[in-house]
Amino acid sequence: MTFPRGRLAIVGLGPGGAPWRTPAADALLTEATDLVGYTTYLDMVEARPAGQVRHRSDNRAEGQRAAHALDLAAEGRSVAVVSSGDPGVFAMAAAVMEQLDRPDRPASWEDVEVIVSPGVSAAHAAAARAGAPLGHDFATISLSDNLKPWSVIESRLAAAAGADFVLALYNPASRHRPFQLGRALTVIGAHRRPDTPVVVARDIGRPAERVDVVPLADLDPAVVDMRTVLIVGSSQTRMVDVPGWDRRGVYTPRRYPEVSADG
Amino acid sequence: MTFPRGRLAIVGLGPGGAPWRTPAADALLTEATDLVGYTTYLDMVEARPAGQVRHRSDNRAEGQRAAHALDLAAEGRSVAVVSSGDPGVFAMAAAVMEQLDRPDRPASWEDVEVIVSPGVSAAHAAAARAGAPLGHDFATISLSDNLKPWSVIESRLAAAAGADFVLALYNPASRHRPFQLGRALTVIGAHRRPDTPVVVARDIGRPAERVDVVPLADLDPAVVDMRTVLIVGSSQTRMVDVPGWDRRGVYTPRRYPEVSADG
Repeated sequence: MTFPRGRLAIVGLGPGGAPWRTPAADALLTEATDLVGYTTYLDMVEARPAGQVRHRSDNRAEGQRAAHALDLAAEGRSVAVVSSGDPGVFAMAAAVMEQLDRPDRPASWEDVEVIVSPGVSAAHAAAARAGAPLGHDFATISLSDNLKPWSVIESRLAAAAGADFVLALYNPASRHRPFQLGRALTVIGAHRRPDTPVVVARDIGRPAERVDVVPLADLDPAVVDMRTVLIVGSSQTRMVDVPGWDRRGVYTPRRYPEVSADG
Repeated sequence: MTFPRGRLAIVGLGPGGAPWRTPAADALLTEATDLVGYTTYLDMVEARPAGQVRHRSDNRAEGQRAAHALDLAAEGRSVAVVSSGDPGVFAMAAAVMEQLDRPDRPASWEDVEVIVSPGVSAAHAAAARAGAPLGHDFATISLSDNLKPWSVIESRLAAAAGADFVLALYNPASRHRPFQLGRALTVIGAHRRPDTPVVVARDIGRPAERVDVVPLADLDPAVVDMRTVLIVGSSQTRMVDVPGWDRRGVYTPRRYPEVSADG
């Protein structure tokens, strides 16, 4: 007796809707018999062929969601696990790999075809709206301490800010973690001028999109939530008037001086 | 006398061909009267409507290319400046912003509409092919010292490796810079175990694509060139058997232990 070979595709939707979604991701979504994901992300996928099943889950239950998706694929289903942005950055691709690395991994998963389909990440889309703040070396850090100690976050912020990286900050705040962004800004502020440009990008690519550029000293943590990505400039990052834009542009030059401005 | 308002779109092609190119980028390429770019990237764009002009340039002349594109747009043309991957990462978006920031910026540029269209970056596509090596905090660094001092590169590598970031390394080597990757690996090796997984990804998304996973101690700099992106794991990055894959998968778990394995 043979079973059809199931598929597990981990699909990055890109930020927002269809204009920033790759054709490869779109094809995998169309071919899927089952969509699995956090309900907010599933709502970003337009209606697909009749019969496609949507399995909605809570945002926290990533391990369970990944195992469920693998079980469905093991039954011969074509499953798409969806993430906003890129699934490889603080998202579902690692959660699926963790399940595949379990010592008690079920034998039924051995025949599943596994595909990771990359997407435009939220930080890169936010950077595009602002100009080119990620034009030079940058560090990408999640401020969530749900899965890592805050001491690790602080030491990484200090190391990256001290070495003059631009900083792309994911999960900068939530209702459960109201004080941490302020502490992060204190760590960063020890290495940056008060007028360092910060890009505050919320709901990028969605109807409610909002992008602001503020000096580091003026950033109010209260305006930042989980749907926001922050990009904090290096010592070299500059503001620029871009023709026709209603806000300042921000870019980090490609050339780095022999002696930095604050060195 | 009025002129039509020209457009300058800085367009990320994504890595490789059409499957990883966003619809937004595709539309901008189709609407363009003029494509401007390094000849290798222009060759990645399929033929467009008759009459579209392609302005090919050398890879080094980014500033001139950006100014030329702005001049064309100021004449009322619809210009697309193309970059592989994401145009905001070590690419043309910063070069255009630098031109817009010139003290002697021509008045004719004031009416140009400026758009940055993000793309899937090479590192994220390489990560997808390997599993999820960028699943946790990571630093993105260009090893090219054409525009920054090597001392800055070394200090950033040391800071990022010391703080246990995963490292995504762009421009890891070229014929003009044959010795630098070896020096970079020495800096990194002071902070990482010899068996740390390294993803060696060349020509991602193109017909000649090749992805290898090797332990850090076995990485031969001679196999690495400018068309390669390297991803060096953190202390937590692991290899995993992914069903059906002809190479090991690599992922960085979402959870970070209270005390790291090498701490």
